[in-house]
Parts: sequence; C-alpha cells; structure tokens
Amino acid sequence: MSNKCRIVIDTLGSDKGPEEIILGAKNVLEENENVYITLVGDEDLIKNSGLPLDRVKIIDAKETVTNYDNPVEAFYKKEKVSIFLALEEAANDDEVVGVISSGNTGAVMVGTLRYLLNEKRTRPALAAVLPTTTPGVFTCLVDTGASIDVGPTQLVEFAHLGSDFMRQLYKIDSPRVALLSNGAEATKGNKLVKETHKLLAVEPGINFIGNVEGSKVLNNSCDVLVCDGFAGNQVLKVTEGMAVNIITELIKYGKMSGNEQVTGMAAQHIMRTYDLESNGAGIMLGAKKLVLKCRGSSGHRAIQTACKILINLTNNKSIYE
Amino acid sequence: MSNKCRIVIDTLGSDKGPEEIILGAKNVLEENENVYITLVGDEDLIKNSGLPLDRVKIIDAKETVTNYDNPVEAFYKKEKVSIFLALEEAANDDEVVGVISSGNTGAVMVGTLRYLLNEKRTRPALAAVLPTTTPGVFTCLVDTGASIDVGPTQLVEFAHLGSDFMRQLYKIDSPRVALLSNGAEATKGNKLVKETHKLLAVEPGINFIGNVEGSKVLNNSCDVLVCDGFAGNQVLKVTEGMAVNIITELIKYGKMSGNEQVTGMAAQHIMRTYDLESNGAGIMLGAKKLVLKCRGSSGHRAIQTACKILINLTNNKSIYE
Repeated sequence: MSNKCRIVIDTLGSDKGPEEIILGAKNVLEENENVYITLVGDEDLIKNSGLPLDRVKIIDAKETVTNYDNPVEAFYKKEKVSIFLALEEAANDDEVVGVISSGNTGAVMVGTLRYLLNEKRTRPALAAVLPTTTPGVFTCLVDTGASIDVGPTQLVEFAHLGSDFMRQLYKIDSPRVALLSNGAEATKGNKLVKETHKLLAVEPGINFIGNVEGSKVLNNSCDVLVCDGFAGNQVLKVTEGMAVNIITELIKYGKMSGNEQVTGMAAQHIMRTYDLESNGAGIMLGAKKLVLKCRGSSGHRAIQTACKILINLTNNKSIYE
Repeated sequence: MSNKCRIVIDTLGSDKGPEEIILGAKNVLEENENVYITLVGDEDLIKNSGLPLDRVKIIDAKETVTNYDNPVEAFYKKEKVSIFLALEEAANDDEVVGVISSGNTGAVMVGTLRYLLNEKRTRPALAAVLPTTTPGVFTCLVDTGASIDVGPTQLVEFAHLGSDFMRQLYKIDSPRVALLSNGAEATKGNKLVKETHKLLAVEPGINFIGNVEGSKVLNNSCDVLVCDGFAGNQVLKVTEGMAVNIITELIKYGKMSGNEQVTGMAAQHIMRTYDLESNGAGIMLGAKKLVLKCRGSSGHRAIQTACKILINLTNNKSIYE
C-alpha cells in the first residue's frame, strides 16, 4: 500500500473491551507506515497503550449505545458517545477515508444518517459481501440487520445502494439484482417481497433478475441480494452458524478417526474459501465515506481485517485481496 | 417394525415425475411386509409399475396444484387433484396413519386444514425437525414455509403446535420455546417478533425462554423455534445450501490434495450428523394424522426416508432411528 490514509476507529462498543480494539489499531500502525488512525474512546487508556502517538489522533469519549438503548434517543440525550463522535469526525476531516466500529448497529446507522449520508440517498443500509462458490466472486447482501421493519420502496433503495457499490468497487457494469424469497417463482414471497418484486421489475437503472431462495444465496446467483434487515440477518448468521458447526464436526471427526492433519488442513481451506474471519465486517452503504461495522464480539484480529478491507476499498482493490 | 400400517402417498407433484415416487413406494413395500400403501395418481401407470397390488390401493387422480396456482382456488375449481384426494382418503380411512406428498406446500396446507385439522387448532403449520450439534437432540422449527404472512397470535399457535409435537413424539415434558430473532435480547426483532415476545412471555402452557438468533439455531438452544414461514424457509434453505457448499468444497479439497478417501469419509460423517437426506421432509403440525411434505425435488430415496420417518413416528420412536 503506497497511499497515505487516515482511518477513524471507535474503541468502545466491543464485548471484548477497548484494549482489544486498541491492540488491533496498534498492529495496523506497526504493519503500515502510511496509515494514520484517529481513535475515539478513553483518552488516558489510549495514551498509555504504547501506540506510535505521532500517527494517532485521540478524541475523548466515554459513552456507548447499548443494545438496550434506543439509538435515536441516545443520539439526542447522551453526550460524548464514541460512535457518534467517530462518524462526526469522519465527516469533518477530509483526510479520513473511513470509520470502523464494533458498537451498536442502530447507533452506527443513526450516526451515518446524521453525519455521512450521500445526498442521493434517503437512508443507509448495512451490507455484507459474501464469498460465493465461484472463487473471487462475491454477492452483496443488503440489508443485514440495520433496517428491520421496512417497506417496498426501501427495498428498492437497497437495490440501488447495492448496485452502486458493486459497480463502484467490483467494476460490474450492470449488477444482477435479486430479491430473497421462499421460492424462485415471481408468485413466491411474503407481502413485502411480492410488492417489491413489481416495483423492481420496472425500476430504471436496476438489472432485476427475479427471486433467489435461501439455498442459492452463496451460489453466485446474483451480484446484489435484496431483503429486509431481519431476513438478511438470518441469512448471515445462519450461514456462519452452519459453517462453524460443520467445521467443528470435521475437526472432531479428524480426531476420532486419526486423520487430524488432513481434516485440519481441509478446515483451514474451507475457512479461507468462505472467508469466515473477515465476514464479520458489514459495510454501511449510502454513506459519503466507507463505514465498516464489525461484530460486537470483535477482537484485535477483526479490527486488523476491517482496516485491511477499508484500505483495499480505498485503493479500489478487491475487498478481500 | 411389527405393527401393520397404511400410508397414503401422493404420486404427483414431484419434479422428478410419478415414476420416482412409485419406485420409492415399491421399495418400501418390498422392505416392510407390514406396510400397506394407498397410492394417489395415474391409475394405469401405477397398475403397470410392478407393485405387489395385494398391498396397494389406488385412487385415480390426474391433476396437481402448481406453484402458479392459488391453492384455495385450486381446491374449489380443480377436480381430481392428487394431494386433496390423498388427504381426504387419510381422513376417511381409519387404517391410514399418515400421508406423504411432494406437491405444492400451500395445497398440502389447504387440504390438511380442510380434511385433517385437529379440533383444538385453528390452522396447521409446517415444521422441520433439525438435528443439532448435540447428538440425538433435535429442534422443531415452525413454520418453515406454509404460513408466510402471519400475525403474533398465529406465532403463539405455532408455539403450541411445536410444544405438542415435542411432548408427544420426543417425550419432552416442558419443551423450551424460543423466538427466532436478529439478536438474543428481548428488545431485538421486527414488529412481529416484538409483539409475539410479549404474548409468549405470559402464554399458559408455553415454556418461553426468549429469543434465539440465526447463528444458534442448530446449537440445541431450544426445543421449539418459532418464526413466520418466510423466515423459517430461509433458515431451512440457507442451512442446507451452506452444508452442501461446504461438503462440495471439502470433497474438492480432498481431490486437489490427494486425500480423497479421508475427505470422502468425513463428508459422509457430516451428512449423517446433519441428516442432510431426511431433512427434506417437513411435518404438518396440527393435523389429526401425520402429514409429511417432501421437497418438490424428491426422488424415490426421499419417499423411502419419509416412509421410515412416518413409521417411526407412528410407533413412537425417535424420528430418525
């Protein structure tokens, strides 16, 4: 990586504590001399973490938005909330290429909407870039949990957000857009899907190819897979849960049958193929700058992966290079 | 198996054609001399399929309900529809223990509602019995695609249907009921889940343990997992799609690395553990007799597995023995 860039990292919000996030940032700074980081969180803690402070800016913040808070209320009532300060900083500092947070999804959404929304769009959406069975080919799943209760016009907006993203980042001229449904036929779907189907079929600028069912989501059936955040969250988490269970079973079988070495290597191969580590980071579409939302369970490795993705995206490289 | 029993099988509705379904029935009859089968479908074809006709009753039917039909309209307008005739026969013939169909889910639902509904219930639901990471322990997922657009009171009914089933078939006194959501906290969920959460928390006869998220559905987190049919269909199909993809990748890795034998055995072990063959059969809860809905892609093996499940359930054995 040759270009200088600055990343804002929210150090609060991870279940693993700020120390893990700060360690991730430290590792990134050590590995990439052209990276500058703005850390948002407990100033004293950050100062005393052995970071190269000449490349670090600190914004003091003590508060987070928890899963029990209403993110909109928190935005107006709480002060010095790390994720809001991080997004505000990204909006105000031209050097910043992106923001990374493992805090509350709703709060990342509200903060993005308030500080970083692309003027062409009405609200952001949280996407995941899923590896498919075709090596090097990815499907953008949108939304994955930021917008739970939505209507057909919002799903149409998701189709645009996903298409913009795949055009811009993956250089796909006319991304194939599909709707997640309970069957491939146009007659299948809940009310929301059926109504959206009619709208997408005539929407200008959208290459709509119809419905895709759950069993085909990772089969390179489409470039952009549109669904409400509740359904998308199921797809994302069920995929990962099943992958983890099968890999666990594979390793158990290896031990049981005395083939530990082979099954261990096979497990690693599968984890690489399905990119089970970096999958954790969601991308907030519709923002003026890159906003990566990591899992609440993120440790230093997840933060390092998120920084790598962000740097690759900034340099217009494939996301997982 | 020692008890005599009669099963009704709908021979139409599978993408693989009636010959495959009839072959499945034939194999079951050859393997189990105490099984009698009522076959619904093309009379001439069935007669000329080399079946032991002394143990076969034939009901002539030529019509099916396709994915493009409205099942309720089809019920009133179409004549001699195999799935409706099959369910009617099950209601009228005391010898019959259950029905197997790979036809349209909506039609199986409408037919069950019309002919076989348990008086205590208002409508049936399509469940799947999912193997979990704990050997021999299963989770009943309800609904998996028969009731797509539902309200909170219907989800409460699903909780009862699933609890009845797990009590009756698996001898679990107080089945743990959970709601599928996008997070474990009570504040997580779409409107439907949040409203249902309040109802289930105070519902008599339901052991409600809260929300379960997608990554935990196969981890023996609950005995009954309640969701609308759209979400349940995603869980079921995404689980299977991911399993198939990983197993394919495992076998590919084995070939590539010269470890075909080990990866082949590991793949078989995983397929057995996750019961990837019998998973295909859904169970219609709330019916007076057992109704198994097989996939539209069912061949003779799926029918044989479905018969085995049905016979086990009839004899109060575990479903996958």
